[in-house]
Amino acid sequence: MATSKIPHATAKRLPIYYRYLHFLSDAGKQRVSSTELADAVKVDSATIRRDFSYFGALGKRGYGYDVESLLAFFKKTLNQDKLTNVALVGVGNLGHALLNYNFHQSNNVRISAAFDVKEDITGTIQSSVPVYHMNDMKEQLSVQQIEIVILTVPSKVAQEVTNEVVEAGVKGILNFTPLRITVPDTVRVQNVDLTNELQTLIYFLDKFGKQDENKLG
Amino acid sequence: MATSKIPHATAKRLPIYYRYLHFLSDAGKQRVSSTELADAVKVDSATIRRDFSYFGALGKRGYGYDVESLLAFFKKTLNQDKLTNVALVGVGNLGHALLNYNFHQSNNVRISAAFDVKEDITGTIQSSVPVYHMNDMKEQLSVQQIEIVILTVPSKVAQEVTNEVVEAGVKGILNFTPLRITVPDTVRVQNVDLTNELQTLIYFLDKFGKQDENKLG
Repeated sequence: MATSKIPHATAKRLPIYYRYLHFLSDAGKQRVSSTELADAVKVDSATIRRDFSYFGALGKRGYGYDVESLLAFFKKTLNQDKLTNVALVGVGNLGHALLNYNFHQSNNVRISAAFDVKEDITGTIQSSVPVYHMNDMKEQLSVQQIEIVILTVPSKVAQEVTNEVVEAGVKGILNFTPLRITVPDTVRVQNVDLTNELQTLIYFLDKFGKQDENKLG
Repeated sequence: MATSKIPHATAKRLPIYYRYLHFLSDAGKQRVSSTELADAVKVDSATIRRDFSYFGALGKRGYGYDVESLLAFFKKTLNQDKLTNVALVGVGNLGHALLNYNFHQSNNVRISAAFDVKEDITGTIQSSVPVYHMNDMKEQLSVQQIEIVILTVPSKVAQEVTNEVVEAGVKGILNFTPLRITVPDTVRVQNVDLTNELQTLIYFLDKFGKQDENKLG
């Protein structure tokens, strides 16, 4: 399977397909057409068929896609068949909200450790997740073999903390800070820049008015 | 100025450029090369030059870009010269974190109203923002002429609430729910799907290993 050729845009849509298929499966639906899928996930059906084609021909003309086999396929592709433990670094307002965020609803992801410097929460369990002091971060990341961290620290310490988690062997960072952090080529960063998302929305409304740009989102 | 031709990918980078230029200006820097910019914002310099070219030639060969004039230009383009009021709908854990989130650090955006159904917070001021009952949402959105809402309600009511804000004249929705909401063509939706971001990261780590995909992010 030539998964190394999958475009980034396709990869980003896979979890969306997966979640909807999970929903269909729960609802007892046995098959789905690319048109139905398109309508539900707001991606046009030609794009869906092209996305699916990267994995080989999964559907049949006039029948559509078999929900369970598609789901089993995606589950494997998206690594849903094994649990991924991630750590959260920085338990402020946003960090706290993410501890309570239902990441694992139909997904095999779990925040298994959190780190902060605040004495009143380190050594406690917050929203079922143990909060360790930052001084113990490198050791705990290593012991727990955590390769992915969610970064919700203040901007001014973001690079310093990034350097530490990279030294601890982390390979992926979901970066919620507005800082564009610097990492080695071996580490992948996914930026979630909330101000940027809001500004992009404002920008499009202002410049493009009523023009429908949704499908590009 | 042919702003209607600006690609979505370019538009998404504009706030990043803007924020960095603001930082340079604060630091008293007078000019910046596309290479320096590239290094700071993690976008290659050819892309930066192409992005800037959509707005006309702003830089000079051998000199780079003048920070203040570039900043003034972006400020205007990104609508930073007028305050944009937005509303937050759904004051749960994530909603509460967003009320405290520093959206307006170097940005002219402000959450001016929040809405919820919980009796213990409606009618109160949370993190300097008044929280109204959902029953008053349509009236308040209209009175305050708010065109953009941040949607942080539970998934099961997301579509229903979306319909209400659309009826109230909202033109843009920053959607934090995992639901793909349905809106008329006149309304723009920007999805911030945290589970999807995390899964994309896991997916890339799993499939591509150490390959550097950062620049596609």
